[in-house]
Amino acid sequence: MSSGGGLRRRADLGTLTDGHVQRFEALLSKSRVVTSPHDLESYNTDWLKQTKGQSRVVLRPKTVEEVSAIMRICSEENLAVCPQGGNTGLVGGSVPVFDEVIVSMSLMRNIIGVDPLGGTVSCEAGCVLEEVNSHVDKQGLMMPYDLGSKGSCQIGGNISTCAGGLRLIRYGSQHANLLGIQAVLANGDVLDCMSGHRKDNTGYHLRQLFLGAEGTLGIVTGAVINCPPKPAAVSLAFLGMEDYSNVLATLTTAKQMLSETLSSCEMMDNVCMEAVVGKLGLRSPLDRHNFYMVLETQASNQEHDRHKMDNFLRELFDNGSIQNGTVTSEPSKINTLWKLRERIIEGLSRDKEVLTYDLTFRHAKCYDIVHAMRERLKKHEATVSCCGHIGDGNVHLNIQADKFTDSLRAEIEPFVYDWTWKNGGSISAEHGIGLYKRRHLHRAKGTTPWLETMRAIKKTMDPAGILNPYKVIVDPREMADDKHFETASVLDN
Amino acid sequence: MSSGGGLRRRADLGTLTDGHVQRFEALLSKSRVVTSPHDLESYNTDWLKQTKGQSRVVLRPKTVEEVSAIMRICSEENLAVCPQGGNTGLVGGSVPVFDEVIVSMSLMRNIIGVDPLGGTVSCEAGCVLEEVNSHVDKQGLMMPYDLGSKGSCQIGGNISTCAGGLRLIRYGSQHANLLGIQAVLANGDVLDCMSGHRKDNTGYHLRQLFLGAEGTLGIVTGAVINCPPKPAAVSLAFLGMEDYSNVLATLTTAKQMLSETLSSCEMMDNVCMEAVVGKLGLRSPLDRHNFYMVLETQASNQEHDRHKMDNFLRELFDNGSIQNGTVTSEPSKINTLWKLRERIIEGLSRDKEVLTYDLTFRHAKCYDIVHAMRERLKKHEATVSCCGHIGDGNVHLNIQADKFTDSLRAEIEPFVYDWTWKNGGSISAEHGIGLYKRRHLHRAKGTTPWLETMRAIKKTMDPAGILNPYKVIVDPREMADDKHFETASVLDN
Repeated sequence: MSSGGGLRRRADLGTLTDGHVQRFEALLSKSRVVTSPHDLESYNTDWLKQTKGQSRVVLRPKTVEEVSAIMRICSEENLAVCPQGGNTGLVGGSVPVFDEVIVSMSLMRNIIGVDPLGGTVSCEAGCVLEEVNSHVDKQGLMMPYDLGSKGSCQIGGNISTCAGGLRLIRYGSQHANLLGIQAVLANGDVLDCMSGHRKDNTGYHLRQLFLGAEGTLGIVTGAVINCPPKPAAVSLAFLGMEDYSNVLATLTTAKQMLSETLSSCEMMDNVCMEAVVGKLGLRSPLDRHNFYMVLETQASNQEHDRHKMDNFLRELFDNGSIQNGTVTSEPSKINTLWKLRERIIEGLSRDKEVLTYDLTFRHAKCYDIVHAMRERLKKHEATVSCCGHIGDGNVHLNIQADKFTDSLRAEIEPFVYDWTWKNGGSISAEHGIGLYKRRHLHRAKGTTPWLETMRAIKKTMDPAGILNPYKVIVDPREMADDKHFETASVLDN
Repeated sequence: MSSGGGLRRRADLGTLTDGHVQRFEALLSKSRVVTSPHDLESYNTDWLKQTKGQSRVVLRPKTVEEVSAIMRICSEENLAVCPQGGNTGLVGGSVPVFDEVIVSMSLMRNIIGVDPLGGTVSCEAGCVLEEVNSHVDKQGLMMPYDLGSKGSCQIGGNISTCAGGLRLIRYGSQHANLLGIQAVLANGDVLDCMSGHRKDNTGYHLRQLFLGAEGTLGIVTGAVINCPPKPAAVSLAFLGMEDYSNVLATLTTAKQMLSETLSSCEMMDNVCMEAVVGKLGLRSPLDRHNFYMVLETQASNQEHDRHKMDNFLRELFDNGSIQNGTVTSEPSKINTLWKLRERIIEGLSRDKEVLTYDLTFRHAKCYDIVHAMRERLKKHEATVSCCGHIGDGNVHLNIQADKFTDSLRAEIEPFVYDWTWKNGGSISAEHGIGLYKRRHLHRAKGTTPWLETMRAIKKTMDPAGILNPYKVIVDPREMADDKHFETASVLDN
């Protein structure tokens, strides 16, 4: 666990004083200004327990007006701020690096309203994903995305990291589903675009700027989100196949035959399966195969859905894409089968250390990174495996070792990022850049003018650089390098 | 038709000289530098024939490098630029107001590639929508949006106006479908984000900034667009009902019963129907009703699709939502029925002048604007009607008159924008702001800080204000007011 590491605190930023704390207490009352070292611990520590900040104060606003007043004070006093949602991020973006003031959104958890006919929910940023889903469920709607961390991650964090998840193939990205936003800017101004129209072409679409900005352009305080109708029928196919070309053939067939009903298309290799079966004791419905896929459909008519699934399975057997497979529409069986995919990282890390990389490629290239990494690490005691949202071209490359020594780690990074960049991939599909990957950002879309435009927008919206400093892009006011943080996330969904 | 009207040319902008023309000719060859007044005519005139610019030169680049070189020259010489696609825009955004250099994208019409498995097409910005659709059709894919102007509108223009169209309810907005972009910035730098991954969380999602920016932040030169699988089955229901509450009930039932297959949900009132039947001689499949709806489904299985449609129609009859209705899966009949919706504006404007407003509201409020406008105009010889993409909460309010006198027009505007704003609507659902609506932009999302943030981003990305000036936002360097342009679009889709 690190605190600041090789990175130096920006000298231009203000330092928290007792006077500041008193101003915050006057604003929020004492009970919502956390200063006890014991209570600060969990806010300062990221979910991966890789990074620990040194913040001396957590503020817990209940209203957008309070967030605005906080930002006015911080802007006046040049105090850096780290906005924090459920603190489930995987790139060190949600905890302070030094003494940034933590603004926790956890008390802003009102659901403002649901429009059943329009299919939208308006809520405050601190709402927990699973709670919002339960709420809209009562109106026959569902949240358009599903994340492993749904029990604790918050809507504001989902937006700020542009979270992907399991059902993007069907319901689209956050860009597709974010219909309105409310955000507090660096100077305390409130940007209110909460009308939530499905169509609204009145000037620049500013709400989209906050997707994936990881709290560096403003603090998201509210959102309007598209909610599709809850499906009447859900089915799941669990398939085993010989090689990666069969995975691609199955995906092609699924797009044709399951088409509008396909809601998830996941892949895992045999190393992943052996981990959940061997280490966690889960039961596989199939014998051993080199590759496995989980395909889920969500549809409005049970009979049609099951008919499509059965035809699909028959076609896969007939065209030789799969060696074996099973289909179920039974909710408890669906849940059990999903665990085989969802608990992979837990299985892999049961008695090893694990590094996970979240990468996107064109589908045909997705598994090449595994071969490349196995070749590179063949003289090391390390196991390389792969799982992921293959329908979206998004794979999670997992590397297990007893201990990641500096020399082993040097074999892996920056190789994995370079290989990805050279092969037209993305070094962060859904987890973001945060603290851990910002030194590799030039391996994302090249350098200028992409990086320059990002910097210009950051400078325009937060000239003093007080919003979540040391994250996403390197500020010119930072003097030291931060290579200490060039680590990948240890855990992954 | 106006040329500049009450608006004054910005004095800080450069003036085209023979020397500039020679530099452009050296860059592009004479054949791609248009200077003859006769040839300039169509480029200077907008599709509505409401605005005529006075540009003296049209440049027709074939490559992004040429666009970049053009912008370097214009930036050096402070020459204003009006990027132009198919020139089918409805808010005066695609023609110059004064002597801006027109950069026509029509020669950049290469389709770069199709990824059949990923479901994407990469193309240059000058590609015509219908041509791209025909191209991806051969690979079993379709473009995710359909516009009335598809035979001439271009991809770059679709992006720059964030075009909506008929199938947004199913396939999502441009935000959902734009996966990559290439754009030339004001200084000539090329922003290249053409990797086109479905998931890519590496820094700010800059491509989204160009959606709806109407050429004011950069010239879009290429794009990667999500293409869903082409449907195997298409069905269409044409329904007649008593009142607007039946329209809403039908939409509710459609969302439940047609669900994932629903691809269009359109509405028109009896004034619209009488125009296409009475003035254009089209044949309605139904007797007279107060309201009509067109619902289309696109699905992968003909039998399932038809079964869903039949059940849907039976339910509507049973619950009393409709008075009459017909369903077809026959392509020629589907085309014929679509004409009843698509040719409304043509029918309404056959022997009258027509003003059309493109508005979004919450569904329950959509038809209230018609009642409000009828009440307001009851002493005038004007007919108010309504059609639109009701599934998206997007209506087109149409007003017919023999002649829109200044006094009649003053009754309509700014009333229509004020009413929309006060009732939580959007004054431009899918057409944009352009030249005509920019003075009403404060009736879009309030004033500061929304408008200020827009201005700050514009200033950052185009400090000299040379990209499509006089459009979207008012530049402080403009001195005169431009109330002359406070007109709505005359034609509409």
